Amino acid sequence: MAKMKKQPRPKAQTPKGFQDYFGTDVTARTEMLNTIAGVYHRYGFDALETSAVETVEALGKFLPDVDRPNEGVFAWEEDSDWLALRYDLTAPLARVAAQYRNDLPFPYRRYAMGPVWRNEKPGPGRFRQFYQCDADTVGAGSVAADAEICAMLADTLEAVGIERGDYIIRVNNRKVLNGLLEVAGLSGDDKEVERGIVLRAIDKLDRLGLSGVRELLGEGRKDESGDYTKGAQLSDEQAEIVMLITQNEMSLSATSHLLSIKEAVKGSPIGCEGVDELAEISGLLSAQGYGPDRIVIDPSVVRGLGYYTGPVYEAELTFEIKDDKGRPRNFGSVAGGGRYDDLVKRFTGQEVPATGVSIGVDRLLAALRAKGRVDTTAQGPVVVTVMDRDRMSDYQTMVSELRNASIRAEVYLGNPKNFGNQLKYADKRNSPVAIIAGSDEFDKGIVQIKDLILGAEIAKNATLEEWKDRPSQYEVPRDEMVAKVRAILDEHS
Amino acid sequence: MAKMKKQPRPKAQTPKGFQDYFGTDVTARTEMLNTIAGVYHRYGFDALETSAVETVEALGKFLPDVDRPNEGVFAWEEDSDWLALRYDLTAPLARVAAQYRNDLPFPYRRYAMGPVWRNEKPGPGRFRQFYQCDADTVGAGSVAADAEICAMLADTLEAVGIERGDYIIRVNNRKVLNGLLEVAGLSGDDKEVERGIVLRAIDKLDRLGLSGVRELLGEGRKDESGDYTKGAQLSDEQAEIVMLITQNEMSLSATSHLLSIKEAVKGSPIGCEGVDELAEISGLLSAQGYGPDRIVIDPSVVRGLGYYTGPVYEAELTFEIKDDKGRPRNFGSVAGGGRYDDLVKRFTGQEVPATGVSIGVDRLLAALRAKGRVDTTAQGPVVVTVMDRDRMSDYQTMVSELRNASIRAEVYLGNPKNFGNQLKYADKRNSPVAIIAGSDEFDKGIVQIKDLILGAEIAKNATLEEWKDRPSQYEVPRDEMVAKVRAILDEHS
Repeated sequence: MAKMKKQPRPKAQTPKGFQDYFGTDVTARTEMLNTIAGVYHRYGFDALETSAVETVEALGKFLPDVDRPNEGVFAWEEDSDWLALRYDLTAPLARVAAQYRNDLPFPYRRYAMGPVWRNEKPGPGRFRQFYQCDADTVGAGSVAADAEICAMLADTLEAVGIERGDYIIRVNNRKVLNGLLEVAGLSGDDKEVERGIVLRAIDKLDRLGLSGVRELLGEGRKDESGDYTKGAQLSDEQAEIVMLITQNEMSLSATSHLLSIKEAVKGSPIGCEGVDELAEISGLLSAQGYGPDRIVIDPSVVRGLGYYTGPVYEAELTFEIKDDKGRPRNFGSVAGGGRYDDLVKRFTGQEVPATGVSIGVDRLLAALRAKGRVDTTAQGPVVVTVMDRDRMSDYQTMVSELRNASIRAEVYLGNPKNFGNQLKYADKRNSPVAIIAGSDEFDKGIVQIKDLILGAEIAKNATLEEWKDRPSQYEVPRDEMVAKVRAILDEHS
Repeated sequence: MAKMKKQPRPKAQTPKGFQDYFGTDVTARTEMLNTIAGVYHRYGFDALETSAVETVEALGKFLPDVDRPNEGVFAWEEDSDWLALRYDLTAPLARVAAQYRNDLPFPYRRYAMGPVWRNEKPGPGRFRQFYQCDADTVGAGSVAADAEICAMLADTLEAVGIERGDYIIRVNNRKVLNGLLEVAGLSGDDKEVERGIVLRAIDKLDRLGLSGVRELLGEGRKDESGDYTKGAQLSDEQAEIVMLITQNEMSLSATSHLLSIKEAVKGSPIGCEGVDELAEISGLLSAQGYGPDRIVIDPSVVRGLGYYTGPVYEAELTFEIKDDKGRPRNFGSVAGGGRYDDLVKRFTGQEVPATGVSIGVDRLLAALRAKGRVDTTAQGPVVVTVMDRDRMSDYQTMVSELRNASIRAEVYLGNPKNFGNQLKYADKRNSPVAIIAGSDEFDKGIVQIKDLILGAEIAKNATLEEWKDRPSQYEVPRDEMVAKVRAILDEHS
């Protein structure tokens, strides 16, 4: 410590963009993850926990082509290698599937949950460490694997407390999008810019509406602020083809819409394949009873512009919440995924089909909170106060008895001199009950039990008359302490 | 992907010193952590989860006095700051206790569990990421807080499956050690070398025995390999005083030993204070029924040479296990901690008393495995095989029914062409049951149910006669499938 005295005091500060989680924020998440793991497990998925650290080489997305490959990831050099914190749970899975390919059972169904890290500029609501909760099937080319994950996602949402009707899972296929683009004459290498504009436009359907998207497919669009976004310059005919996918979502059983899309992409083999796959997924899910109240085919789903090669899916919560300013808004997406057949190939050279979903744990928790499904005001412990410092072992014996009866309890361990501080502490802990015993009580073989919840209610609402009639403090024989505390807790629960 | 083609394929490899955990290795740990959290919670401790990343400044132990402050931690520069992965859960707690000192209830009882990272040379059994599971009380100067944590540690070990008698918690006080050293004339700044030798010698009591420690207090000691370690050069009288603390552990009620130590340190105020504190801890624990079968006072406990300022404690498992070569050895320590009153002061300048314990999660899990208390051969899912690719939705309906009956189940999603591969897969998954249904079965409204556990047993042990008498495959009506599977699972559980 001698050295440190020369240094200025360090600042006690959470690093920028990171967060500390306290109490029920931690336990509610743990509980939710345990519930999700239960569903994943029942579906035959096995747990995998890779280390937080990967080689930059294995992460792949961020190759060290500059001196410091830390764009997007937290990375550091070790000897001549670069190590980095994982930015998602899919890249480590691809590494594992390649590394253990001779030992793992294939198809390999695995789930993983844990923090991931992004080296981004911190902003409001944007964090550099957050939880993901993934389930993937590696080595299954059949779209039955995609259908299974969609069904599991529906079961998972309901298991954590999102009621049927409060969510919808939308399924699409990148092959359908690619087929439509092909038919519209946008498949060449020289059309990459146009394809990008088209996909980004569709991705904004929710926000821009049909007419906004249509403008972006053509000349361009001026937004409310007057800013102009250049469009893809499609002909009317081309735009009409693309707009086919912005039709409202189709119920799983309504195959007529699928047929009209199929008609539109009939010139594109990949497009036809995509429609057939959607029909297969739709059929599998209907047969298991996952109807359009839970899962729908929706050709307007794009799911970013990333590595997906086939079916894509996302779960959206359909209820409204109030934003910071009290305005209603849709909650939006809490989970998404799709098929990515090229990730393992990076390592092995061999194509390994894979599909999987990632749940945004923090968003899902926020949704459950908005729905009042998370107990955020968890009850504190029963506090045994200290009236007489020399009686500490008697107080400890009281908490032992309470704990042995599975009642959360503790003795006040601060300086007991100021009794008011002890009650303030109990208040800050949100304690339901305080136990009070001084030499008088010990002599008489009794304890005082203060019902703090009732006490707070009375203090808030009652007239003086009522106050007198509703005592919130009880004197009970010492050997009835546990029973009386239990009775008070039961009354409030 | 175009760019990547130019690169050689990345290696699919876990970074050196890191590990991947599969299946039951993950779930057994999660279950253990949940159990521990339950005990901590009942004792009034609240969850805290800080981010994995801290500023190097806040971590403190590793100040950036060299160009790259990565000795011991994984660190990287961001703008002009250095960030690092936490190396334990205590440093972040000190930061949090300082940062939120106006909002937290004090005493602040918190628990935390999660991975920590050490930038050490990887070696056998030495990993660079591992789990810790801590409970600390910040802001309680009373040794009642230390006693509480010792009691909680005993309860925790029993809750996860270490039986009473298979562990012992040893409690000491650094003040007693310091007092004895003072009385022995080793308290001056000029005696730092001797103190170091003495403490390290005591720390090795288990391995060197009394005579070995005695040698190191005097001239020095030659080990079996002939290597010579120089001793502390104490006089016989000095050594005798120090050796007092190597007496066998004392039962909590046997205060006579404490008295003899007190007699020895009577010239040292700090030593006397230490003995009084141990007596108080001992008294508190006895009163709650934590006798010497669970917790003992043991003046030979040193607990490293770190930041402890008062009581120190450690939990040792007392049963023998076999090492890699089949030789019996003691399992040793699985948890330890103590009082550190200076850590928060680094930030605020004000002394904040604190005490806490850290459980070595991986060692404790290994101990439970050695005791057969961890289910390492977790059962795989029931596998519904695919005889007829066009019947996929029928197979999916079967797994739905099984899952709805809380039976872990999945349909085979690999290429179904080779039926043998499907059974090999079920075998690799450790599946208890396989369901088989082709067009014959569908026509007749039946399914074949294969009891794979019984099948494996028969294949291993039975004669041909017995084989015939004990069929491991059953033909049942389709609507009795779930009931039959349930019956088979129940039989094996």
